[in-house]
Amino acid sequence: MSIMSIDNRLWSAKAKTLSPYVPGEQPKHDNLVKLNTNENPYPPSPKAVMAMQAVLSDEARMLRLYPEPESDELCQALAGYYGLKPEEVFVGNGSDEVLALVFACFFTKERPLLMPDISYSFYPVYADTFGVTTHSIPLKDDFSIGVEDYHKPCDGVILANPNAPTGRLLPIEDIKKLIAMHPDAVVVIDEAYIDYADDVKEASAIRLIRQFDNLVITQTFSKSRALAGLRVGMAFANPNLIAALTAMKNSFNSYPLDRIAQAGAKASVEDVTYFEDKRTQVIKLRKALTQDLQALGFTVLPSAANFVFATLAAHDAADISDRLRQEGVIVRHFKQPRIKDYLRISVGTQAQNERLIEVLTHILSVDN
Amino acid sequence: MSIMSIDNRLWSAKAKTLSPYVPGEQPKHDNLVKLNTNENPYPPSPKAVMAMQAVLSDEARMLRLYPEPESDELCQALAGYYGLKPEEVFVGNGSDEVLALVFACFFTKERPLLMPDISYSFYPVYADTFGVTTHSIPLKDDFSIGVEDYHKPCDGVILANPNAPTGRLLPIEDIKKLIAMHPDAVVVIDEAYIDYADDVKEASAIRLIRQFDNLVITQTFSKSRALAGLRVGMAFANPNLIAALTAMKNSFNSYPLDRIAQAGAKASVEDVTYFEDKRTQVIKLRKALTQDLQALGFTVLPSAANFVFATLAAHDAADISDRLRQEGVIVRHFKQPRIKDYLRISVGTQAQNERLIEVLTHILSVDN
Repeated sequence: MSIMSIDNRLWSAKAKTLSPYVPGEQPKHDNLVKLNTNENPYPPSPKAVMAMQAVLSDEARMLRLYPEPESDELCQALAGYYGLKPEEVFVGNGSDEVLALVFACFFTKERPLLMPDISYSFYPVYADTFGVTTHSIPLKDDFSIGVEDYHKPCDGVILANPNAPTGRLLPIEDIKKLIAMHPDAVVVIDEAYIDYADDVKEASAIRLIRQFDNLVITQTFSKSRALAGLRVGMAFANPNLIAALTAMKNSFNSYPLDRIAQAGAKASVEDVTYFEDKRTQVIKLRKALTQDLQALGFTVLPSAANFVFATLAAHDAADISDRLRQEGVIVRHFKQPRIKDYLRISVGTQAQNERLIEVLTHILSVDN
Repeated sequence: MSIMSIDNRLWSAKAKTLSPYVPGEQPKHDNLVKLNTNENPYPPSPKAVMAMQAVLSDEARMLRLYPEPESDELCQALAGYYGLKPEEVFVGNGSDEVLALVFACFFTKERPLLMPDISYSFYPVYADTFGVTTHSIPLKDDFSIGVEDYHKPCDGVILANPNAPTGRLLPIEDIKKLIAMHPDAVVVIDEAYIDYADDVKEASAIRLIRQFDNLVITQTFSKSRALAGLRVGMAFANPNLIAALTAMKNSFNSYPLDRIAQAGAKASVEDVTYFEDKRTQVIKLRKALTQDLQALGFTVLPSAANFVFATLAAHDAADISDRLRQEGVIVRHFKQPRIKDYLRISVGTQAQNERLIEVLTHILSVDN
């Protein structure tokens, strides 16, 4: 049904003014080289799959019962992996749901929320949903975040690190400065892609939650854990902030994670070897892809994510995207003015990346 | 962490004043006769389990990819089963999430929301979460809903049919009167338990969505489909109302249903024979349980659900509940004044119901 034909007379004022998030396309057939939504090129841990199969064989009749509402065992596994206490961990139905609850708990205040002008495009949607005033801070010309630009009155700050769609990593020292700058605001670092930083232990701000009581870290099982299809995300923070998320969750939906997802996510966390192996492989593939794109003349931003953000002088990025698609390769192009000359390309398998380079080579040879 | 020790200085005003929903206890061990949260005594359809196993065998590597955001195939299956169009169907992460979105879309308006004084205890929590003013309409003395009491200015009405925790069914003619009474308000009938009505086709208001553009029906896979552990719920309404729910979902969380849940729920809908068989069995068990409780002296409200609401004159219901628990049988007792003398008892398997009656018989014999 087209939006034009909708009769919204019974909608709330809020519903009438929403600008919903538009996710990257999920094509229904599988014969495309899909490099548009930053999914993992590898499958999830076989141990995670086995744990879910076990729920469906040994415990299938248990599916008649509600799941554990707080996902206790999963929180304990995450706490163990990161050296935290379970009360410093919160999980939800994908990090998108976790972020929504974060907005409701911490950003619906008097003063504005600060965020980069270019970042995850769901942030302004949440702000709209929850009536949060935002103040957009431009990235620097090289698309890096300048924390000195965040010296402004605010009740919250949110940024993705590495940022999306740029892939750039903000050094931990800058993150510390940002958090210390705003002791009375909640600072949220969305680490959806942090596991693809070369030195994740150094890059992640998780260890800072003991030092700063105003810091929230969000992460997801959708990228480095290859479980986008399972919908699990998490937050790490001081227990006083986690308690707010739990109260908000239980005022909205008590049981966001089903029995199978809880079991699969827990087993994924416990399979450290597989996780490290695949994470490292993707980092290698990203470096090779970056070099191959540079060899074709692309300028590629330094990426700490499982995607690269690349531009080719004197070419229309939207046109390249369209022509890639005609050849069965999907990448993401954003129409926003500052980044309209860029393509965001997810790191695929070696074969997928080679196919991308092959098609790009062909497109550029036709042009020249 | 006790609520007393929480430092909430960084919480939003809304977060500070929430009164979260308290779900029925989910004990972690399995040797209890659990009749407290109205789950199905039977396991889910074996075909639903097989469909989920297939996702984890044939398509496990697909879990790395995001699921279909609108759960199209599941909506089509539901539409097919109920003789609707897919655009008249919406699904979410349990009917609790669907209800939350319903509140945000249709009830955050000027005039109050009308609801029974005794009903699903999550409704006032949602009202609080979304800042909805409510007007509570007392049930009649026999705990039935008197639709003539709903002749009041309002922007919305919500009630459960059959109602919880009473189990009483409101006749379809009364529902029609209620909807026709409020053409400018959205009327939501929460049919979580409707499949346990003796004549579900007659009792359900689903067929009225073509007649009334202000009607929303919610249902769940957690009861009659024995998939409380999977988290799937749905709404049926005019496409103009479904479009609001979709916009709100995509402003909150784009992918609420994972790949496994979409497949399992779809297969459950398609297994009509199993569904009808188990639904009918539970109705028979309810009738037997009702008679057995009456034989012990209980007054049992007429129930169209998979639970009964029962009281025993000259006995303290909270005390009976405690003593049942000591013997490993859990039922639900609510402390609200009007219903404090009642127990809500889920219909279990024949063996579970017999154990309940056995323990009750013992308790009452000690008292006499």
